[in-house]
Amino acid sequence: MKPVYLDNNATTRVDPEVVSAMLPFFSEQFGNPSSIHSFGASVGAAVKTARGQLQALLGTAHDHEIIYTSGGTEADNTAILSALESLPDRNEIVTSKVEHPAVLSLCQHLEKTGRAKVHYIGVDSLGRIDIEAYRAALSDKVALVTLMWANNETGTIFPIEGLADLAKEHGALFHTDAVQAVGKVPISLKDSSIDMLSLSGHKLHAPKGIGALYVKRGARFKPLLRGGHQERGRRAGTENTPAIIGLGKAAELALAHMSEEQTRVKALRDRLEGGLLQRIPNCFVNGDLHDRLPNTCNIAFEYVEGEGILLHLTRAGIAASSGSACTSGSLEPSHVLRAMNIPFTAAHGSIRFSLSRDNVDEDVDRVLETMPGILEKLRALSPFWTGDDKGGKEFKPVYA
Amino acid sequence: MKPVYLDNNATTRVDPEVVSAMLPFFSEQFGNPSSIHSFGASVGAAVKTARGQLQALLGTAHDHEIIYTSGGTEADNTAILSALESLPDRNEIVTSKVEHPAVLSLCQHLEKTGRAKVHYIGVDSLGRIDIEAYRAALSDKVALVTLMWANNETGTIFPIEGLADLAKEHGALFHTDAVQAVGKVPISLKDSSIDMLSLSGHKLHAPKGIGALYVKRGARFKPLLRGGHQERGRRAGTENTPAIIGLGKAAELALAHMSEEQTRVKALRDRLEGGLLQRIPNCFVNGDLHDRLPNTCNIAFEYVEGEGILLHLTRAGIAASSGSACTSGSLEPSHVLRAMNIPFTAAHGSIRFSLSRDNVDEDVDRVLETMPGILEKLRALSPFWTGDDKGGKEFKPVYA
Ligand SMILES: Cc1ncc(COP(=O)(O)O)c(C=O)c1O
Ligand SMILES: Cc1ncc(COP(=O)(O)O)c(C=O)c1O
Repeated sequence: MKPVYLDNNATTRVDPEVVSAMLPFFSEQFGNPSSIHSFGASVGAAVKTARGQLQALLGTAHDHEIIYTSGGTEADNTAILSALESLPDRNEIVTSKVEHPAVLSLCQHLEKTGRAKVHYIGVDSLGRIDIEAYRAALSDKVALVTLMWANNETGTIFPIEGLADLAKEHGALFHTDAVQAVGKVPISLKDSSIDMLSLSGHKLHAPKGIGALYVKRGARFKPLLRGGHQERGRRAGTENTPAIIGLGKAAELALAHMSEEQTRVKALRDRLEGGLLQRIPNCFVNGDLHDRLPNTCNIAFEYVEGEGILLHLTRAGIAASSGSACTSGSLEPSHVLRAMNIPFTAAHGSIRFSLSRDNVDEDVDRVLETMPGILEKLRALSPFWTGDDKGGKEFKPVYA
Repeated sequence: MKPVYLDNNATTRVDPEVVSAMLPFFSEQFGNPSSIHSFGASVGAAVKTARGQLQALLGTAHDHEIIYTSGGTEADNTAILSALESLPDRNEIVTSKVEHPAVLSLCQHLEKTGRAKVHYIGVDSLGRIDIEAYRAALSDKVALVTLMWANNETGTIFPIEGLADLAKEHGALFHTDAVQAVGKVPISLKDSSIDMLSLSGHKLHAPKGIGALYVKRGARFKPLLRGGHQERGRRAGTENTPAIIGLGKAAELALAHMSEEQTRVKALRDRLEGGLLQRIPNCFVNGDLHDRLPNTCNIAFEYVEGEGILLHLTRAGIAASSGSACTSGSLEPSHVLRAMNIPFTAAHGSIRFSLSRDNVDEDVDRVLETMPGILEKLRALSPFWTGDDKGGKEFKPVYA
C-alpha cells in the first residue's frame, strides 16, 4: 500500500523538477560562482536567476536583500545575534512562548549568559498572541522583536505586519521566522515594516541544507559566519549553488501553486479535520480556526498518548507527528500546546497532520478509515477513559 | 575542446557515485531521520552508515565525535567560538598568518571587539611555521590554538600532530582546519592530541553545503547554532541528509583513492610543475617542496599579473586560480604569499594549479603547451620585464 505522508511541516518531498534543476550543478557546472573561469561563470548566472525567483515569492523590493543560509535555524540564529550586535545600546528581546526552538533556545541561552533580557509574550487558548502584553513589552530598550509568521505545530498565523509596525514605533528591529509561512501564504515584503525574515528550503519542496535570511535594505546587520566574501560579506562559506538553484525553482513552483494551496490543499485539510471530528468523540482542534495555514491541522485526542497514535499510524503506512519533529522522541508535552493552556491529557494526545500539494483525496480517505479504530483500541487501554463523552472529565492538568 | 579543470582546491566535481548515493534521499526517502515514521527510519540507517564512512577516513576512535555543519567555514567558526566560550578563564588564541579567511577574519573580529587576544604566528619563505614563535606564544592564557593542516594556496603541510602536542602541554584546546588535507593525505585522529578538526565536503568530491567538525570525545564544546536537538544538541537545524550521505560516499571513495592521490595525481602534479619551470624563465615554486599536498602546485611567474594569466588560461579552456577563490576578484596580493615574504612582482604573478583524481595526462599536456605562449605575450607588455633572466631584478617589493 502506498504510504501516506502528512508530515509536511517537518519536511517536504523535494519536487522532482527541483531535483532536475539542481542536477547539472553537481558534476558538470560545479565551479564556484565567484571564480572567473568558465566552470564558475555559468553558475553565477543560474544563481542570479534563482535569487530572482525567491525574491518574487517574497515580494521584495530590491536586489541584495537575500542572504542564503544553511536552513531556518541558521537564519533565525543569525537574525537574533545580529540584532544584539547591531544595536549595542539595547539589550532586550521580545518574542513569544510559542516560537520554534531555533528562536527560543537561543533566547534562553542569551538570557542565561546575561547577554539579553527576554520577554516571552503569551498566547490565548487558540494560540493568538496577547497584544496587550506585546505592547507593554515594547520600549526603546528592545533591540529585536522576533515573532513567527505561522506556528509549525498548530498553523496559527500571527498578524505579523501589524506587529512589525508596532515594533518600528520603538526603533526595534523586527524579525519574523516565516519558515512555515513561505510558500503557503502570500507574502509581500516590499511595503512591510519587517526588517528580517527567515525561511527554510526543505519546508517548500526544496532540499534540506538551504535557507535564507531576508534583510531589508538599510536594516542594520552583522554576519554570524565570518570568512570569505560570499553573500557580499554577510555570510561566509562557499555558496551551496545546487541548493540555491533548487530553492529558486521551488520558489517559482510555490508561487505557481499558491492558489492550489489556498483551495485544493485547504479543502483536503478541511475534509480531513471535519471527518475526524465527526467520527471520533472527545477530540478538538488546537489553533486559531480563523487565521491558520491552509495545510495544517492539529487535533487533540483526549485520554490517549500521541506517541501511541503515531505508532499505529506508522504501521498503517501513515506519517504524521506529535509536537514538532525536533522534539519528538521526548515525552515532554509540546511547549506550544502548554502555552495555549491545553489540558495535559489533551496536549499529550495531540497529532499534527500537515499536508502539501503532493497529497491527494485518497490520503485523506486512508486517515479517516484508520483513525477511529486506532482511537478505540488506545482508549480501551487508557486509565482515564470512561467510555463516553464525559470520559475522565475530572482529570486535572498537571502543569507546573 | 574539453575544458581542463585545475582548480580543485577551490571546489571539486561531485563524484557521480556520490550523486547516485544522494539521489534517493531527495524525493523518495526524504523524511527527517529523527521522525519515528517510515519516511524517516530508513534515512537514519543511511546516515549512520555515512558517519561510519567519514569516521574511517579520519581514523576516529569513537562514535559521536563528528558534528555535521554546512561547510568548512561554519566548522572553523564553531570551533573558535566554542573554545572561547568553553574556557572563559582564558582569552588568547594562537593561529598563523597563513590561515584561511574562515579562521583569520573571525580572529580579527574577535580581536577588534575585545573578545580575544590573538597571536598570529609567522612563516618562513617556504611557508613553514615559525616553531620558536609558536612555543613562545603558548601559555596558560591560551584557550585555543587553531592551525591549518595544509595550506589552500601553496599546499604546504604543517607538522600538525607535533603542534597539537605542544598546545596540550599548556592545557589549550587544539583545532586544525583540515579542509585541504582531508582526502588528500592520511589522517588518523585516534592517537593524536587534536581536539577539533574541520573539513568541507566540496573539497573532496562531495557536494557543497556540507562539512563537519570533529570534536574529540571529552573535549569541551559549546554549540554555535541553537534550536532543535539534532547532532546530540551540538548543532541545531534539520539534518542535511542527502549531503551527509553524499559526504559518506565521498569519504569512502577518498580512502579508496588515497594511494592514487599519493602516486598518480602527485606524478601529474610533478610533471606539470617540472615542465613549467623548464619551459618558462623567471618562475619558481611557492611552498614547501618537502612537505606539501600531492595535488597542489603554486608557481610565481615574475613580472606579470596573475589575473592576466588566468584570463588567457580561461580563453584556452583551462581553469586555475590566483590566490584563494574567495578573494579572487580583489587585486590585493594573497596574504599567504605576503606572509612568506614573496616579492611583490612574484606574488602578483602567482598561479595555483590544483589537481584531483579527475585529472588525466592530457590536462597537463594542455597547460604545458599553453602557458609559455601566454607568458611571452604578457611579459612583452610588462613594464618590469627586460627580456632575459635578469628581467627587472632591481624592482623592489612594495609591501607595507
Ligand atoms: C517555525 C520553524 N522555524 C525554524 C525551523 C528550523 O528550520 P531548519 O530545521 O531548516 O533549520 C523550523 C523547522 O524545523 C520551523 O518549523
Ligand atoms: C583551508 C580552508 N579552510 C576553510 C575553507 C572554507 O570552506 P567552505 O568554503 O566550504 O566554507 C576553505 C575553502 O574555501 C579552505 O581552503
